[in-house]
Amino acid sequence: MTEQKDKMTIILFSGEMDKAIAAFTLATTAAASNMDVTIFFTFWGLNVLKKFRFAVSSSQNILQKMFNFMSTSELPISKLNMFGLGSWMMKKLMKKSKMASLDDLMKLAKELNVKYIACTTSCGVMGLTKENFTDDVTEFAGASTYLAEAKDSKINLFI
Amino acid sequence: MTEQKDKMTIILFSGEMDKAIAAFTLATTAAASNMDVTIFFTFWGLNVLKKFRFAVSSSQNILQKMFNFMSTSELPISKLNMFGLGSWMMKKLMKKSKMASLDDLMKLAKELNVKYIACTTSCGVMGLTKENFTDDVTEFAGASTYLAEAKDSKINLFI
Amino acid sequence: MTEQKDKMTIILFSGEMDKAIAAFTLATTAAASNMDVTIFFTFWGLNVLKKFRFAVSSSQNILQKMFNFMSTSELPISKLNMFGLGSWMMKKLMKKSKMASLDDLMKLAKELNVKYIACTTSCGVMGLTKENFTDDVTEFAGASTYLAEAKDSKINLFI
Repeated sequence: MTEQKDKMTIILFSGEMDKAIAAFTLATTAAASNMDVTIFFTFWGLNVLKKFRFAVSSSQNILQKMFNFMSTSELPISKLNMFGLGSWMMKKLMKKSKMASLDDLMKLAKELNVKYIACTTSCGVMGLTKENFTDDVTEFAGASTYLAEAKDSKINLFI
Repeated sequence: MTEQKDKMTIILFSGEMDKAIAAFTLATTAAASNMDVTIFFTFWGLNVLKKFRFAVSSSQNILQKMFNFMSTSELPISKLNMFGLGSWMMKKLMKKSKMASLDDLMKLAKELNVKYIACTTSCGVMGLTKENFTDDVTEFAGASTYLAEAKDSKINLFI
Repeated sequence: MTEQKDKMTIILFSGEMDKAIAAFTLATTAAASNMDVTIFFTFWGLNVLKKFRFAVSSSQNILQKMFNFMSTSELPISKLNMFGLGSWMMKKLMKKSKMASLDDLMKLAKELNVKYIACTTSCGVMGLTKENFTDDVTEFAGASTYLAEAKDSKINLFI
């Protein structure tokens, strides 16, 4: 007899570092306490999963290249940016207070089997293909796959 | 014997084009797969439902007129704006990749009977009356109506 | 025999005035209609609970002081700021339309026993201690406490 685990499903729409950290802190804490966790990456959230954050693909047209270039490089933070100062300070503060960095959290998330779904519709708009992403992606799928996961989840969040 | 449908309820707080597209993509996909979907439009989200996005009403005082003027015109996108370039690029990219536009999604949402509730409290603050909105609005109501819908929903999101 | 109340749990991640007003409007409306409501304050959302919004603590290092200074003063609004004009206009409009202010809503929330949890991890990063917060905080705790609350909730939102 298998026990049915409680589920949490997060849509990560935002590409900002602080929101990604919030999402992965919740995801890893939930997975560590025996929940099934799925993150559905869409729009700017896809940037978190990119192999090289500056990368443009040869299959992208000019507009897509510009769009990706502007939207990536380093993940900004949602509140203050000021030429990157906000992100730099946040990293420093996290290090000083021994808080896990986004990369640490993402590594932990994979060890805890957090499921990553990359939104195929957003990939299409931005001209991104599987080769642009790290191997961490579990599945490429659309909104109906998200809904099937979310319907069974005790906790649903849009971040 | 009537079957009880699964429900999804979305609060659309944001007035940005990318977030509105995310909300309507989820709403139409859910409604197409036989779910009951309600969107509760509040604060900037109300801009999505306005008849004329530039319109000011004769019943608005000066402050309300300024507030509406600043907040509408074209829906911006949440991440990059740069004098409207972001919105323009996103529309181009969506067209190229044959993704449905916000207007297409909203038309589809009405055909699929997605329910629109416009928040009366926000309307009051912004000086908006029923005449400012398209006929798509199903109901004008407040937070307690939202809560009654959300309590029965399997998926609740704040966008 | 005690009746089990329906629960709502909100993560308040944002420090903007308009989002805080949305969160507290939902929280007070739910609590007034006999729901159990918990708000989990994290990242910028902690600013809403600070005793003095400009305050820096003697236990903070230079970086933390800068981070707090930049992030507080007055709560901005998410969409338009323009040197504070947005917040000022919103307050004026709310007063004119007799809508409750954030301070009114927060007072009401405490009367209705809305539970406030301040995120200990975020406090650590920002160098904030219990002395920096108003007495309204019910509990200092981390993500696992949030998850325990959220799992039993009919409505979960991330704002």
